[in-house]
Amino acid sequence: MATAGKVIRCRAAVAWAPGKPLSVEEVEVAPPKAGEVRIKLVTTGICQTDEHLLQGCFPNTEFPVIPGHEGAGIVESIGEGVTSVKPGDKVIPLCHPQCGECSFCRNPETNYCQRSHFSGPQNLLPDKTSRFTCKGKQINHFLWVSTFAEYSVVPEYAVAKIDAAAPLDKVCLFGCGFSTGYGAAINTAKVKAGSTCAIFGLGGVGLSVVMGCKAAGAARIIAVDINKDKFAKAKELGATDCINPRDFKKPIQEVITEMTGQGVDYSFEAIGHADTMITALASCNMNTGVCVMIGVTDSEISINPTLLLTGRTWKGTMFGGWKPRDSIPKLISSYLEKKFNSDLLITHTLPFAKVNEGFELLRAGKSIRSILLF
Amino acid sequence: MATAGKVIRCRAAVAWAPGKPLSVEEVEVAPPKAGEVRIKLVTTGICQTDEHLLQGCFPNTEFPVIPGHEGAGIVESIGEGVTSVKPGDKVIPLCHPQCGECSFCRNPETNYCQRSHFSGPQNLLPDKTSRFTCKGKQINHFLWVSTFAEYSVVPEYAVAKIDAAAPLDKVCLFGCGFSTGYGAAINTAKVKAGSTCAIFGLGGVGLSVVMGCKAAGAARIIAVDINKDKFAKAKELGATDCINPRDFKKPIQEVITEMTGQGVDYSFEAIGHADTMITALASCNMNTGVCVMIGVTDSEISINPTLLLTGRTWKGTMFGGWKPRDSIPKLISSYLEKKFNSDLLITHTLPFAKVNEGFELLRAGKSIRSILLF
Ligand SMILES: NC(=O)c1ccc[n+]([C@@H]2O[C@H](COP(=O)([O-])OP(=O)(O)OC[C@H]3O[C@@H](n4cnc5c(N)ncnc54)[C@H](O)[C@@H]3O)[C@@H](O)[C@H]2O)c1
Ligand SMILES: NC(=O)c1ccc[n+]([C@@H]2O[C@H](COP(=O)([O-])OP(=O)(O)OC[C@H]3O[C@@H](n4cnc5c(N)ncnc54)[C@H](O)[C@@H]3O)[C@@H](O)[C@H]2O)c1
Ligand SMILES: [Zn+2]
Ligand SMILES: [Zn+2]
Ligand SMILES: [Zn+2]
Ligand SMILES: [Zn+2]
Repeated sequence: MATAGKVIRCRAAVAWAPGKPLSVEEVEVAPPKAGEVRIKLVTTGICQTDEHLLQGCFPNTEFPVIPGHEGAGIVESIGEGVTSVKPGDKVIPLCHPQCGECSFCRNPETNYCQRSHFSGPQNLLPDKTSRFTCKGKQINHFLWVSTFAEYSVVPEYAVAKIDAAAPLDKVCLFGCGFSTGYGAAINTAKVKAGSTCAIFGLGGVGLSVVMGCKAAGAARIIAVDINKDKFAKAKELGATDCINPRDFKKPIQEVITEMTGQGVDYSFEAIGHADTMITALASCNMNTGVCVMIGVTDSEISINPTLLLTGRTWKGTMFGGWKPRDSIPKLISSYLEKKFNSDLLITHTLPFAKVNEGFELLRAGKSIRSILLF
Repeated sequence: MATAGKVIRCRAAVAWAPGKPLSVEEVEVAPPKAGEVRIKLVTTGICQTDEHLLQGCFPNTEFPVIPGHEGAGIVESIGEGVTSVKPGDKVIPLCHPQCGECSFCRNPETNYCQRSHFSGPQNLLPDKTSRFTCKGKQINHFLWVSTFAEYSVVPEYAVAKIDAAAPLDKVCLFGCGFSTGYGAAINTAKVKAGSTCAIFGLGGVGLSVVMGCKAAGAARIIAVDINKDKFAKAKELGATDCINPRDFKKPIQEVITEMTGQGVDYSFEAIGHADTMITALASCNMNTGVCVMIGVTDSEISINPTLLLTGRTWKGTMFGGWKPRDSIPKLISSYLEKKFNSDLLITHTLPFAKVNEGFELLRAGKSIRSILLF
């Protein structure tokens, strides 16, 4: 492409300081270095994790930063040595990389890569520099993907090449929310057919958990949210019961225990609050119950150890346990074969310039996923 | 027997109030009611859980109470309807029952019985009465077994009949410490051959975990204690490394992470402190690590959720995951076939009258298991 090797000037939404609206600015995006890929983003979703970042609650992040981690785009140019993608390929930038070489990547039981940003300079690319500048200032990356920019530079091992037939304004959800929730049920909890499940939080992530539980053949899927407007969608996606903790005098874990006899087989926290993490843990069977933590919070969680001692299992999930470069292309093939319909999670489609409106919809509980089009 | 149907007067160690030494008293033991078994105890071990009870730290327990839960004895008489044991049978009283009928008992994946004392009147037999009196006062049971008494009445479904060849002064350990620790490794963690393990606390329970890890074929077994006098025994039982947190400036989880590259595959807490529970969790691999909580504490535990979010699994174990009536007789058969040598855990054998001395040895860190002989 004509832009290869050159700095690209384009739009991006910059978070200059915590708690402030995003500003759509003109930024400069440097060309990819060796082992990097520059992507022209076509679309991006808005996830609660971006909101955590904007509020300054995401650990180890510094401002100014370009948020966004649920994007889909087309390779614009590649750095030296890149072989797995070429300009023109449709790709998903991966907020959770897969180097394929570290001992975790070589372990089939895990999806956490040791060469992830979580273990290195959180806000910069692996070589500890940024590819973004704005008004003469260096701007930080977010989870290496920063999809709130028309162009973004990403390490090759944080890019998944996908089917050329995939509609980018739909499959961007596979970059985070859908894959995380669906995989939390399928991979992390390994939900069994005929089992009972409870999902706390019915945002894009929690509703994807509902879909995963349904796909796994769960007999009862209890969807929990304090916003009853989420219940219609939850039922459409497979929930058998929808409950609002505010409708009950007793704690919701007691309600769920009574509904199911002994508590559910699997519970999921897809909100990101310390208190609902404890509630989710207490809602699963004291004995064989498995609770999966998906939500992100920077608060400590204080539990009564007896909750675990009687046999419960508590675990976390990152990106739904998928090895992303291997799995995302396959998941998208399943989507194209209509094995599930993640499009139902998309409630709003907005032009990129309306990014702050997208966040307002999320904060007001009016959207599941808003998709921004560049 | 001549005593059947009659009240038996015999010795027992009574805890009258928290924090006080035990007093060996003459007590009256009523005959077994329907579905109950009266056992003549021959021997009993002393477990840290008894010490928790004496200190008033065991949840839902009231004084006065007869402690002890690691006993072995002979059936003296049986109540109406009891069919699985008869007078003269060698038995282990089970602090963890198995009714065989509840939905948990019918679930092969769990060992927690719904008809346990944990779900009912903690200090009384299932019919909410006690079989013990002393000086005209009712004395409470402990975990339904109260093995610090020459005779004790136990529900039939909390009794395991064992091989007549079993030496009672050795196999009493199967009533708690050995089964708990060994099973935590084998059943709860399901330690794999070639894996790495860390065990926090090298008392009777922790050293049994060491034996379980060894039996499972673990390649590296890191034993952790602040009392270095425990290390010789740990090595004898299979530990490959013994470390004392007090010998290091940095936190022991960092030491273990460095020793193993990424943290161990399986960690076990067999102490019962909130802080070491967090340390054990942090010592296992952030990704695929499994941490098993065995120790009992009544303090809350406060964790950073990131410990779980990256993939760790945290679970608890009760009685090592064994279904006790099914498994204890089999485990004792394996012991008789010399598949493992739990005798090595017994460091002291004392007459029953020296029960307080047994606790002094435990508190001073001088014993692993002290066995009391009636
Ligand atoms: N582990 C991972 O890899 C991963 C990936 C993506 C997102 N996340 C996290 O998952 C969480 C959910 O993300 P999302 O985008 O679906 O968020 P969202 O804001 O769209 O949805 C959260 C839902 O929780 C509900 N809620 C809030 N408080 C509640 C309460 N007390 N009880 C019941 N329901 C309550 C809200 O009404 C909302 O419907 C966030 O914490 C996000 O950071 C984690
Ligand atoms: N879950 C169950 O079913 C079950 C069954 C039996 C016992 N338990 C519990 O298991 C725990 C261990 O029992 P035990 O009889 O082996 O106890 P113990 O007192 O014999 O052993 C505890 C060991 O921990 C060591 N220790 C103390 N503080 C430490 C620290 N900060 N760091 C490292 N080591 C430390 C001590 O030196 C001692 O060697 C107790 O909490 C007991 O209540 C649980
Ligand atoms: Zn996300
Ligand atoms: Zn890797
Ligand atoms: Zn015990
Ligand atoms: Zn039962």
